[in-house]
Amino acid sequence: MASAESTLTLELTSRQASDFELLANGGFAPLDGFMGRADWESVCEQMTLSSLPGAEIWPIPITLATDFEAVEGDVVKLVAANGKSLGSLTVSEVFERDVDREAETVYRTTDDDHPGVAAIRAEGSRCLAGKIEVEALPDHEEAFQRRYQTTEESKRAFAERGWKRIVAFQTRNPIHRAHEYLTKAALEICDGLYIHPLIGETKQGDIPADVRMRCYEVLMDNYYHPEHVMLGVNPGKMHYAGPREAVLHAIIRRNYGCTHFIVGRDHAGVGDYYGTYDAQRIFDDIDTQTLGITPLFFEHTFWCEECEGMGSAKTCPHPQESHLFLSGTKVREMLGRGETPPPEFTREEVADILIESMRKESASNG
Amino acid sequence: MASAESTLTLELTSRQASDFELLANGGFAPLDGFMGRADWESVCEQMTLSSLPGAEIWPIPITLATDFEAVEGDVVKLVAANGKSLGSLTVSEVFERDVDREAETVYRTTDDDHPGVAAIRAEGSRCLAGKIEVEALPDHEEAFQRRYQTTEESKRAFAERGWKRIVAFQTRNPIHRAHEYLTKAALEICDGLYIHPLIGETKQGDIPADVRMRCYEVLMDNYYHPEHVMLGVNPGKMHYAGPREAVLHAIIRRNYGCTHFIVGRDHAGVGDYYGTYDAQRIFDDIDTQTLGITPLFFEHTFWCEECEGMGSAKTCPHPQESHLFLSGTKVREMLGRGETPPPEFTREEVADILIESMRKESASNG
Repeated sequence: MASAESTLTLELTSRQASDFELLANGGFAPLDGFMGRADWESVCEQMTLSSLPGAEIWPIPITLATDFEAVEGDVVKLVAANGKSLGSLTVSEVFERDVDREAETVYRTTDDDHPGVAAIRAEGSRCLAGKIEVEALPDHEEAFQRRYQTTEESKRAFAERGWKRIVAFQTRNPIHRAHEYLTKAALEICDGLYIHPLIGETKQGDIPADVRMRCYEVLMDNYYHPEHVMLGVNPGKMHYAGPREAVLHAIIRRNYGCTHFIVGRDHAGVGDYYGTYDAQRIFDDIDTQTLGITPLFFEHTFWCEECEGMGSAKTCPHPQESHLFLSGTKVREMLGRGETPPPEFTREEVADILIESMRKESASNG
Repeated sequence: MASAESTLTLELTSRQASDFELLANGGFAPLDGFMGRADWESVCEQMTLSSLPGAEIWPIPITLATDFEAVEGDVVKLVAANGKSLGSLTVSEVFERDVDREAETVYRTTDDDHPGVAAIRAEGSRCLAGKIEVEALPDHEEAFQRRYQTTEESKRAFAERGWKRIVAFQTRNPIHRAHEYLTKAALEICDGLYIHPLIGETKQGDIPADVRMRCYEVLMDNYYHPEHVMLGVNPGKMHYAGPREAVLHAIIRRNYGCTHFIVGRDHAGVGDYYGTYDAQRIFDDIDTQTLGITPLFFEHTFWCEECEGMGSAKTCPHPQESHLFLSGTKVREMLGRGETPPPEFTREEVADILIESMRKESASNG
């Protein structure tokens, strides 16, 4: 009679739901639940999982920090913010994490201005650990949902296409010519490209889901070969942990079935907390054979008038005056005025979508 | 008194001198001499060296086939065609190889029209095996000599530049835009590019040494970044053994200190003896970790009008009409008439050198 009241139900925040989802869909394999103290500590200190043989590499703690009252042995029902029942957590441990120590080891700073550090501080130190049971995956906006694949689904799709070498590209923004170039340079040595935008929480409000996805789709329709490109979504959230997060991004894509992963300059960085190449150098100490995915390191790329082609500081010898460079602010201003940037910077089809979206936005604001 | 007469002296053919040189300069490591029967057989049948622990991969027999009279224990002085004393061979074994079996296993054909098969038939079956002592390296034309590096020298040069990932490009021809593009795509994920033309015997008479080298040099001066490119020469000869030779080319570049090696379509192939991708597929069965160098597989590449950039069938979705294609014959005709091909096909600086060279040639012929 009192059974409904006695059921423990925790409504996950968007960030917690993001972790749940990657645990549930295979993106965080071999993890099968939220980490306990031993794993939390070994991840922070050694970047490995203590609970698994071979000291498997893991760069960022996946913990469920919450004030929710529960004790070891409890089964906690997990629901999304929209009330959807997702599954349950069997609590194996309740522990206090040292947030400063996590900040220092994982984020390399305890500065509250760092959005990742601010986020773990806001979450607090009390963590519930344990295996999860999965009932359903969280819902997403239609634009993301139509491209949704679990890790099993992406792996099957790659196999059906006969792809053996698959390079994944992590992105949070529309793809301009510079990133098109580096995805294509990587694709030249692979069989397939997996464009895998992150759709979990980021620090920016920025571009609406549908606009972002249509930017990818119009580019795929016009400038990528349909037999060699696929678009999925990564429900992960951003930590802005730079080097450590580059490793997490690589692990997630390994789990989605990719063999190569693009790591650019200052990958997953923010402000100037990390050196430009820290997110590439971290892989120097990692056996990528064991990691199961090969990182491909790229520089910033640009159109060069003298090369009459795309290049980087590694492949182009010409002075900066020959390089087409537009700042993010400048490009937003142009698009806001309805101007298309040069096609060597942004494909016209992508610019059109962004211009239209900005028009609608300013119309609804004005 | 009769000591001069009793000295055994073998004048090496150009092909034999090429093998001697790669044995001498480290390009054929871990080999330290010409193979005996056991290695010959295990290379033919299993693509491995029988004499070394770990069954080291080796794809093509390195044998000294000659009618020269010598027996086990003899020390044979080796000289180049120009009389230069190169060193000596201590004969450990004299054996008969089965030329047909070598043709069948290594070249996948016994057809005399295959230039590699024709070459081993011409050499004959009797082989002298044994370690070599090195006194000097063979001489080369000045254009090659000025870029000459032993494997120790190239490795030192890479280390001095701080390059950790070095991709090697094998070539026998001037580099047009298509190959410039793929070397640059490969360089985007590496630190340095080693342009490493093969300068030993090929089936073509073709382009003079100096012209070829100046084509590379003018391209490096104008379109590659000096801090990320280096030019050496590979004294190897061509076998036209397709897949097996792609593996040999990779091993040689590993020995020169490279970490990556570009393998294109029909690499080292001739006629239609090999499938388009055979030289890439052969690496499927090779543990590249053990091999010590990572092959990078490329398609044919071209300028696409609609992409406004270089691409391949993997990265460009547009129809053939959008692709700039000129046959080798067509390009030679244009150059012969003093016309420069479009810069999207051949850089003007390279075209100028080729036009000038063809003018001189026809003037000296006419």
